[in-house]
This record gives sequence, structure tokens and C-alpha cells, in this order.
Amino acid sequence: MKTLVLNCGSSSIKYKLFDMTSGEVMAQGGIEKVGLPDSFLKFTDKNGEKVILEKAIPDHTVGIAFILDTLTDAKYGCLKNFKDIDAVGHRVVHGAEKFASSVLITKELLEKVKECTPLAPLHNPANLKGIEAIEKIMPGTPQVAVFDTAFHQTMPDYAYLYALPYRMYKDYGVRRYGFHGTSHRYVSRRACEILGVPYESQRIITAHIGNGASITAIKGGKSIDTSMGMTPTEGLMMGTRSGDVDPGALPFIMHKENLDADGLAELLNKKSGMAGFSEISSDMRDIEGAIESGNKRAALALAIYDYRIKKYIGAYAAALGGLDILVFTGGVGENQDSTREVVCRDMEFLGLEFDAEKNRGVRGREVVISKPSSRVKVLVVPTDEEYMIASDTCEILKGK
Amino acid sequence: MKTLVLNCGSSSIKYKLFDMTSGEVMAQGGIEKVGLPDSFLKFTDKNGEKVILEKAIPDHTVGIAFILDTLTDAKYGCLKNFKDIDAVGHRVVHGAEKFASSVLITKELLEKVKECTPLAPLHNPANLKGIEAIEKIMPGTPQVAVFDTAFHQTMPDYAYLYALPYRMYKDYGVRRYGFHGTSHRYVSRRACEILGVPYESQRIITAHIGNGASITAIKGGKSIDTSMGMTPTEGLMMGTRSGDVDPGALPFIMHKENLDADGLAELLNKKSGMAGFSEISSDMRDIEGAIESGNKRAALALAIYDYRIKKYIGAYAAALGGLDILVFTGGVGENQDSTREVVCRDMEFLGLEFDAEKNRGVRGREVVISKPSSRVKVLVVPTDEEYMIASDTCEILKGK
Repeated sequence: MKTLVLNCGSSSIKYKLFDMTSGEVMAQGGIEKVGLPDSFLKFTDKNGEKVILEKAIPDHTVGIAFILDTLTDAKYGCLKNFKDIDAVGHRVVHGAEKFASSVLITKELLEKVKECTPLAPLHNPANLKGIEAIEKIMPGTPQVAVFDTAFHQTMPDYAYLYALPYRMYKDYGVRRYGFHGTSHRYVSRRACEILGVPYESQRIITAHIGNGASITAIKGGKSIDTSMGMTPTEGLMMGTRSGDVDPGALPFIMHKENLDADGLAELLNKKSGMAGFSEISSDMRDIEGAIESGNKRAALALAIYDYRIKKYIGAYAAALGGLDILVFTGGVGENQDSTREVVCRDMEFLGLEFDAEKNRGVRGREVVISKPSSRVKVLVVPTDEEYMIASDTCEILKGK
Repeated sequence: MKTLVLNCGSSSIKYKLFDMTSGEVMAQGGIEKVGLPDSFLKFTDKNGEKVILEKAIPDHTVGIAFILDTLTDAKYGCLKNFKDIDAVGHRVVHGAEKFASSVLITKELLEKVKECTPLAPLHNPANLKGIEAIEKIMPGTPQVAVFDTAFHQTMPDYAYLYALPYRMYKDYGVRRYGFHGTSHRYVSRRACEILGVPYESQRIITAHIGNGASITAIKGGKSIDTSMGMTPTEGLMMGTRSGDVDPGALPFIMHKENLDADGLAELLNKKSGMAGFSEISSDMRDIEGAIESGNKRAALALAIYDYRIKKYIGAYAAALGGLDILVFTGGVGENQDSTREVVCRDMEFLGLEFDAEKNRGVRGREVVISKPSSRVKVLVVPTDEEYMIASDTCEILKGK
């Protein structure tokens, strides 16, 4: 079963084509700068070479048609005909309280996705464009929506509600939804496969840390809490997002900086985090470079970043009543051994014995980095949201 | 040594007179509605009876003079002459980064306190009024300022800094200061006295929970993290304050409700928390009453309140590298056995064995509520910020 996975942003389209019979990735790439004159398609060809094809791509439909042309191209393609694609799975950012799992897309369902748009005004419309483009180009092809929020719909009410006036929840849907759900679900399941333990009986914390970052507590196979909130601003320190901050400080800052609501949102989402604090970069590689050359602010930024992960692990261990498995994933979680080490230092009280030797230098591969005697198993598991989307798509079509 | 402790709010003056030779409380009471026509003084007389004296009290100087008159009154008083008061200790809310301990008040020092006012525009000016009134009425009497923030000045930078643009800290002093420091200091020391263990070698979490609520991690006798931030809005759910909330949700709410910065501050500080969420009351006794009569929203509000305390205990255990002592104090911490029980449930992973029997019904007295076999000791310790202020005052005057 050939499954195309699409992740459409407002000006980007990422794709990955899977042969789900073998689990093999047949092709992958992405278009950037959709709607701009210098848009281009970048992908890896059959020989593993990076190819860039420049082309004016005014909208998502043209973009997806271009991707399909390339997939069937004599030189670059791996398919004879795009009709060989059996199904398309889409990443959809926000499913609000309407979607607790992945779903086959129907007309009625599209309307429900549209109703979630006020909670993700930038993301959901872009995701919908991808769905509509496929329906235009390949009418009748089964499409599945996989929501970033769905996995977290199992959170208990006392974990997802804020201590704000109750009508904020009733009237506007202000509550914790959480994101990165597909990633947290994938790496938590994968960790249990690697360890050979039953998923449903583990108390798991998954730290998806990178430019965007969130951490999730999983019990009985279900998300019971997660650090991102109604928006992806809450929780851990991120590339340009503040994460947790004293809400009472915000009106103070608004007065000082003469900000309105939009100015506040920009400050918290675009000008904060690693970039805003370090005044160097949102990219952890730049931060690490600066630390190596003696930049103290960069070192402090990283110390804040690490400390907050550590505190969330403690908080979620309390929520879970103890911990069995800790998983690191995401750009930083998969590649940065120093952060993993700092976060796991002095965590013996949890039953966690970290293996600094095994951890050192691990980048982007599945490794257990706790000592054999450690009651809590710590793992690096590279995330694969696209595989999870393809897998959900197949499952749903099989079940039809 | 007779020490008067004053806690001046913008429209209230609380006082407590100690004989610090014996540690005995000689008198206590407070004025409410300073500046309003129906202001009054309320105190407990020598026979333990509550007395209310109505009197127009236009300002703090008149109010404090009235308190001193009452302290020397033939019928109600315990002093022959107010000159028998050896020293006055004042609660001062915000000491910013200028004060890491209690200090003898001098002219230069008053200027430094005034410089902290932008961070506590309502509280510090009222505290200063008390100091000025004493200088007017009892010139030359030694006065000591005890800051709510001072105990937390030992926090490491990675714990007190927010992931906001760095200049917010440099230019405006936006950072975590923490509050309730006098209480956290008192109950943590007192817990060690009760247990007969050396203060400096314990890893302690103190939960000061009531209408205002904060939780502190103490290591080596020093605060290393605390849940209140630049303002008292951050952290736990409170009577009318939100505590932690997704900062990214706030611009969304501002648009929906057409709020400006002041409107946002009012929403977060006055209309949220137990009162805003339950739509019943900010008072935990009302919430408990509503729960008893089957109100589900009240039960949910309490579940959120308890859950957040639990998560902070886990987070701070991670910050401390494990836990030795957990202390409950404050209106709820001292009196509400159900919250203590829910918070301590399933915390065996920390080495905490809760004694539900011993906990039941404990109200406002010093009790160890963990099992004898529990590695982590859990205690109820009624707070006594006034005693701590009197004690600091004496220490400083002795050291002169």
C-alpha cells in the first residue's frame, strides 16, 4: 500500500511517500516559499543526491501537482503513475475537542476541521489546502487526517483546564490541548517495542525537544498531561517561544513596551526563547558553538533550557506516580548529548541511573542510555511523525 | 525585648507585639478600611475577647497612633508607655535584587526600598507609610525591614530568569523574585527543629497554600526555586489568581474579551483562580461546602488546585535531586486534610509514605503526618511570619 504523507504549512509543503507493505520510504522532500516568486522543490533522488528544482508555485494545488509530477518523472520519480498512490495522510495541527484520533476525511469531517480553525488560525487553513488540492488532483483517493492534538485528548479535566474564569473554556475553548501528539505517540510506542515491554502498563515521559518543544506524561498508553497548552507557547523554553512565564509579568511588560495583544503574542512567540534570551540564535548548534567560544549568555540560556526539562520530568513523575521510561526525541533530544546528561543528572531518586558513557555522542539513533541496573529506562528514539501518519492512514483504510 | 511587628497594606494595618525575651505574644490585632469613613480597630484583649473599636482613621499615622494608644490603654493595654517598645519590625513586600536579608532601616535604605516600588506599586508604598509613621510618632526607635522576597534571592540564575528577551531583565527587572519568603523560611527551619535534624543538610519543599499560594525548594538552607514569579500571579492556583497559564492563550483572550493590559491584569489576579473557575467563592471553606452539597465544578476546581501542588512537588524534587522534608502551611496547608492527602497520594516513588490516619482532622498545629518508616518526612507547620519578623528584628539589633 503506497501512502503519501503531506504536511502543509502556509508557505511550505513537506511530503514523504511510503510503501507501507515494506515500511520503506520511497521518496521525500518539500516545497518552500509557496506563493513567493522564488519558490522551489527540494528532494532526495533515487541515488541519495539532493535535488533542487526552481519553479513559481503560486498555491498549494500547483505545488502538490508539481510534487506528483516529480514522483512520476522519468528521471527523478519512483512511480509510473500517481494513481499508484493508494492513500494520502495529512498532518492537521488542531483537532480541538472534536478529534481524539485520526479519521478518514469526508465532507462533513472537513467542516468539523474548519470549525477548529479559530484555535489554529495559521495552521489549520494550510492543512486544509493540502486536502482540497488532493481532492482536486486525485479525486476519490482516500485521505486521512492525523491531528497533533488528538493523542492528548485523553488528559483528565483537572490537567487540561486552566484556573481562569470557567466561561473562557465554555465560550472560547480555552484549555490545554497539547501538540506534537503524533510524535509523543510514536516514540513512546517505539520505546516499548525496543524494550520489549507492554505499552499499556508503563509510566512514560516523552521529551520532544527541539526548536519547538513539549513533554508528555503517558500512563496506560494514554497522554495524561503535556506541557504545550491551548497554544504551542506554553511549557518548555523553545527556539523563539518563551514557554512558561509569570502571566502577571505580561501586563507590566505591555505597559513598558507599549504592546497590544498582537505585540504581546509576537514577543512571546517570535522574540523570546533561546533566540531572544541569548541574542545569538534559535538554533541549538549556534548556541553550542557560542558556549564553546566562551559566551556566558549562551551557557545560561542552555542552563535554563535544560533546567526546565528537568522540572517537567519531576512534575510528570508526580502526575504518573513514578516513572518507568523516559524518552528523548526531537532535534535536541536526538542529537544533543549534553542536554540529555544535564537533565538526567541527580535523578537517582526516581530510580534513574544514567549511563553517561553510552549517551556520549549518540545522534539520531535508537539507543538505551540508562545503565542496565536502572529501574527507569532512558532512551533516545528519533521521532517519525510521517511514518505514524502513514501507519494511521493504512490502519483506517484496512478497517473500512 | 519588646518588639512590635507591623504589616501595613494600602488600607489595613496588622500588628503583633512580642516579648522576645519569652517569645510571648503580648497583643495583636489590626485596623481595616484605613482612609474610609467606617474604619475600625479589631484586636484580642487580655482575656482573649475580641474587641472592635470604631474610629475614623484617615491615614496610616493616625492608625498606628491609635494602635499605640490602645496598647497603653488602661483597660485594653499591656504596656505602661509606648516607649517600652524596643524595636519595630516591618513586613516589606518587595526588595527586588537589593535586599537578600532583613535590614536595619536608615535614610539611605528607605531610598533603596522606594526604588523597588515599580515592582510592587501597591504594596511597597503602604509598607513605607508604616515606617514613616513610626519615625514620626516614636522617633529614633530602631526599625527593621523584613522582605517577602529576600529569602529567595539565593535562587540560581537559571531558576529565576525567564526565557524572554534578555533586556526585559536588564531594563525592567523582569525575573522571578518569589514571595512568602518569611513564611517559607520560618516553616522550613521550624520543621527541622521539630524533627531534630540539621537545617543545612536537608532537601525541603515548603507548600504555603492558602488564598495566596506558593511553593519553595530549599537546599543547604537556601531557597533554590519558588513558584511565584516577578509577581504573585505565577505558580499555583489561588483564591482569585490564575497561577500558571499558557502565555500564548492570553493575547487570544484579550482579543475575545477586548481587554487591554490592565484588563488582562485584572482578569488574571482578581477574576481567576478558585473564585473565577468555580464561580462560587475564593474561600476554600465555601468550596468544600459546595463539594459536600454535590457541586461538580467546585470539586473540579479543588482537583485542579491539588494537582498543581502535586506537580510542583515533583518538579522541585527534581530540582533538589530528591526530597527529605515536605511542609504544609498557610490557610489550606494547615487546615485542609483532604488537600494534603490528595497531594501526597501515590508519592511513594519519592520515598514518601503518607499517614492518612495521622493527617485526618489536623488543623493549625505542628504534626508529622508521614509514617514513621517514611524516608520523606511530611509535616504540618502553622506559619508565623510575625514571629520571624520579630526574631529578625532582635537578631539585627543584638548584632549592632
